[in-house]
Amino acid sequence: MQFEILEKDKNARAGLIKTGKGNINTPAFMPVGTQATVKAMSPDELKEIGAEIILCNTYHLYLRPGHEIIHSIGGLHRFMNWGGPILTDSGGFQVFSLSALRKIDDNGVHFKSHLDGSMHFIGPDKAMEIQLRLGSDIAMVFDECTPYPVSYEYALKSLQLTTAWAKRCKELQRQGQALFGIVQGGISKELRKRSAEELMEMGFNGYAAGGLSVGEPKEEMHEIIDFIAPILPGDRPRYLMGIGDIRDVLVAVEAGFDMFDCVMPTRNARNGTLFTSMGRISIKREEYKSDNSPLDPDCNCYTCRNFSRAYLRHLFLAKEILSMRLNTLHNLYFYLDFFRKMREAIGSGTLREFKRKWETAVS
Amino acid sequence: MQFEILEKDKNARAGLIKTGKGNINTPAFMPVGTQATVKAMSPDELKEIGAEIILCNTYHLYLRPGHEIIHSIGGLHRFMNWGGPILTDSGGFQVFSLSALRKIDDNGVHFKSHLDGSMHFIGPDKAMEIQLRLGSDIAMVFDECTPYPVSYEYALKSLQLTTAWAKRCKELQRQGQALFGIVQGGISKELRKRSAEELMEMGFNGYAAGGLSVGEPKEEMHEIIDFIAPILPGDRPRYLMGIGDIRDVLVAVEAGFDMFDCVMPTRNARNGTLFTSMGRISIKREEYKSDNSPLDPDCNCYTCRNFSRAYLRHLFLAKEILSMRLNTLHNLYFYLDFFRKMREAIGSGTLREFKRKWETAVS
Repeated sequence: MQFEILEKDKNARAGLIKTGKGNINTPAFMPVGTQATVKAMSPDELKEIGAEIILCNTYHLYLRPGHEIIHSIGGLHRFMNWGGPILTDSGGFQVFSLSALRKIDDNGVHFKSHLDGSMHFIGPDKAMEIQLRLGSDIAMVFDECTPYPVSYEYALKSLQLTTAWAKRCKELQRQGQALFGIVQGGISKELRKRSAEELMEMGFNGYAAGGLSVGEPKEEMHEIIDFIAPILPGDRPRYLMGIGDIRDVLVAVEAGFDMFDCVMPTRNARNGTLFTSMGRISIKREEYKSDNSPLDPDCNCYTCRNFSRAYLRHLFLAKEILSMRLNTLHNLYFYLDFFRKMREAIGSGTLREFKRKWETAVS
Repeated sequence: MQFEILEKDKNARAGLIKTGKGNINTPAFMPVGTQATVKAMSPDELKEIGAEIILCNTYHLYLRPGHEIIHSIGGLHRFMNWGGPILTDSGGFQVFSLSALRKIDDNGVHFKSHLDGSMHFIGPDKAMEIQLRLGSDIAMVFDECTPYPVSYEYALKSLQLTTAWAKRCKELQRQGQALFGIVQGGISKELRKRSAEELMEMGFNGYAAGGLSVGEPKEEMHEIIDFIAPILPGDRPRYLMGIGDIRDVLVAVEAGFDMFDCVMPTRNARNGTLFTSMGRISIKREEYKSDNSPLDPDCNCYTCRNFSRAYLRHLFLAKEILSMRLNTLHNLYFYLDFFRKMREAIGSGTLREFKRKWETAVS
């Protein structure tokens, strides 16, 4: 994996990540394909709307269908027929947020599957083994996502565990798979700095900020984002995990982050909340009953080119599968298009104006 | 609407229906788009897999979103972005099978909506008005689908009502929309003959057989199919309503039927039952867990060209939307391909062998 910065606008960067599976323009948005499918989308459609990398979930794929099965089918790319780069999270976040009966020790976490209650254990060794078997292009270290609010002592202990696990993951890294470290430390700048420094000493292909948007006020989140970005190495991709609100993305890109993932466009789509250049629309609203206009007149996606708001409302109320398809396609197109335009703004040195315009549009 | 017979193999016919919206090769299979969408499919995909006509349901679209809304958006074709021919059923079958609290009088049926319990009335006048507003290419007369089992007296009364309603529908037919009569009469050959003769006297663009596969034994159904086809005019399309089992279709095509619709491929797809050249497959079965082969090696659909059985099984068990998409696409492709091959068999005078081969394959 190579990373090249092409343009800068103050701290913001427009760059290119080169992988054996294709290039990724940054800042990049990664659609989330939890169970080896981006919900409601075909891989062809993802490619058509310009997705250059997707994220898949280690925890989910380990539990079902199992990483050994995916390996036997030829790996995750072949399994889901996605030829582009794939980033896998480490499972850490899901082990803590989805599973039950967690018991943490120095080697990892014992937990109960959210699917069938069966007992499992994942630590750095297992997380790396699973990700290797899946064959992702970018793996993430196994971390504990520090909750909020939490005492300084807890945050410190959590951080030490994450650092130790990161070290073990680094030892297990194999050629051909990039590995990103994850900065934890809650909302303590001191701990964030310490976390970053310990990871940088080990030397990763990229650096992520985890444990944000877990309940802390937006101001604190933005402060930590602003704090972390500049202390990370300038020549490596910086990935802000799980954050996708347009306003937060703008703050983070301005601070110098390069990669993002979020279920926001896909999950909202299935709930009938659609992103447009005029702000969010709830497609079920009565006012769209006979509305013959496209969802977003400024959008060039398949949904907006071919269907009316009245039809989208009908499909949603009738609980039709095509509703989830057309809504997801639109919301993902909207996100990928937003990122394209953001990269252009960085290239032309107009990110500040771009940010102001979008903050108004989506507020 | 014009109908031309191109080839004959005994009583079976391969023909061409020409409409302002495009040609339909017969025998034709019409995917069912109940609520102005063929479940899980986009209109582009329908076209790609070779669908030449689809069926939409008058009853459902009248209740939701309402025919006036669809009319205000530019009609059903524009509403759902399907440029090809559309046949609308009359709502008769659904009024009797889905709604509650039915009260029949000479002018039509009072019923309670299955959606919200509201009271409605549909008779021949309303059914024609709705279908005209929807703008379908082929409309169906409003009929009473005679149940099974039923007394001769009931079947006779039901038939008289259907004939009277057909007459009224015929009076209301407008230029540009074809209208098909529907032969009823239960399993009485005498009543079926009488029904057909009364309809033929009025002169319709095509003739359908309704009220079959409503519980009667297969042998009786096949006997009625064999009986009805030859008494209908040879120069008009013959449509066997709601029947899609491959074996029944083969019997009906051999008897001289030209058009078919059925939810079987789409509904089965969503339940994980997939049609293949080796018979039906339940994709959830354990044996497909690590099966890297395509669903049907003889199939050239998107699903079979790109994904393994193991992946299809995973998507189904994980209840992913893509499961319903890929399964539906395959099953519809299978049906449309089967009809294509059946037309070729008629053209080459080998329908009998074709039928024997398929009866073995799907048994």
